[in-house]
Amino acid sequence: MNFSSKLLEDAVGEFAKLPGVGQKTALRLVLHLLNKEQEEVEHFGNAIVRLRKEIKHCTICHNISDHNICEICSASKREKEIICVVEDTRDVMAVENTGQYFGVYHVLGGLISPMDGIGPSDLFIDSLVQRVATTPVKEIILALSATMEGDTTIFYLYKRLKDFQIPVTTIARGIAFGGELEYADEITLGRSIVTRVPYETAMR
Amino acid sequence: MNFSSKLLEDAVGEFAKLPGVGQKTALRLVLHLLNKEQEEVEHFGNAIVRLRKEIKHCTICHNISDHNICEICSASKREKEIICVVEDTRDVMAVENTGQYFGVYHVLGGLISPMDGIGPSDLFIDSLVQRVATTPVKEIILALSATMEGDTTIFYLYKRLKDFQIPVTTIARGIAFGGELEYADEITLGRSIVTRVPYETAMR
Repeated sequence: MNFSSKLLEDAVGEFAKLPGVGQKTALRLVLHLLNKEQEEVEHFGNAIVRLRKEIKHCTICHNISDHNICEICSASKREKEIICVVEDTRDVMAVENTGQYFGVYHVLGGLISPMDGIGPSDLFIDSLVQRVATTPVKEIILALSATMEGDTTIFYLYKRLKDFQIPVTTIARGIAFGGELEYADEITLGRSIVTRVPYETAMR
Repeated sequence: MNFSSKLLEDAVGEFAKLPGVGQKTALRLVLHLLNKEQEEVEHFGNAIVRLRKEIKHCTICHNISDHNICEICSASKREKEIICVVEDTRDVMAVENTGQYFGVYHVLGGLISPMDGIGPSDLFIDSLVQRVATTPVKEIILALSATMEGDTTIFYLYKRLKDFQIPVTTIARGIAFGGELEYADEITLGRSIVTRVPYETAMR
């Protein structure tokens, strides 16, 4: 592209580095910001710089937080003896949004993926094992994606955790609510038949 | 959404204000930036704040520029007596990218649009008329979009400029290169027949 201004080119270049944002979209976003009040643009720029500079990770569960201990880990009404293991902060938000979970979390920071060179030591797995070893835990829920990496990570975690004799569960997999049988893939449908649940349980 | 951090919520909120960016995309972009080095994130934030603070508009053609007179208006090799009138800086870039135009520009800053409450006085039309009145001009090319607003603006500009007895042209409209006749709309196809050009001209 042929920019009339170095400042414009710089700003567009920075936006175009974001995932899924090309040069044209970047230009559109930058021109949008140019039409805003200077104060608004400064607030935009500062919000992201401040975030990067001041953000902390909870020392217990490794979730993104404004403090050294996150709101969930420090909340008195959360059940500290149930730990839900998730990949990242987005999954914490997804589970929180359901309003169905009242335990605490453990954020792994990724999934085991030999293809991407991510091994167990790159994730907060040792700290999970230590947490289970040093604090009373009643149940560990593995809420990881139903992908190859997710399954690998679940298998590894299960091996590391089974000696503690604490129930290790995984979230249920099956046909989504509103999902039609004829469009379900055969693996999901097959598993959902094998792991069928009594009607009373399903209706709880 | 249920954010674990006020800083995170702030940054996501700022991104979600951008056009075409929803909460989920905003979160994805912010988490992407969180994984970058602090220096990189500062460069990102500062690029946009600096742009808004330091950007100028060329006093001759109103294009976005780092200086009071833009690079095009101050270039000695550009033909100053041919003015291409465009809507905004994106159109300047589009025409520049063709490498086919060597005159100068006049950026209107929008199109006349009664629906959006934009009248001639909201655009740099008076300054165009003054420019034509005070400097020697050989041709005025109206390179505006082929929309209702574009046509309205062209009609208004033509009325304002015709007394100067300077040739006023519009960019050619017709079937795009690579376009197939059977998929062309009838208005475009009809006009392209009416405004047909000698083969020698088309091949130039």
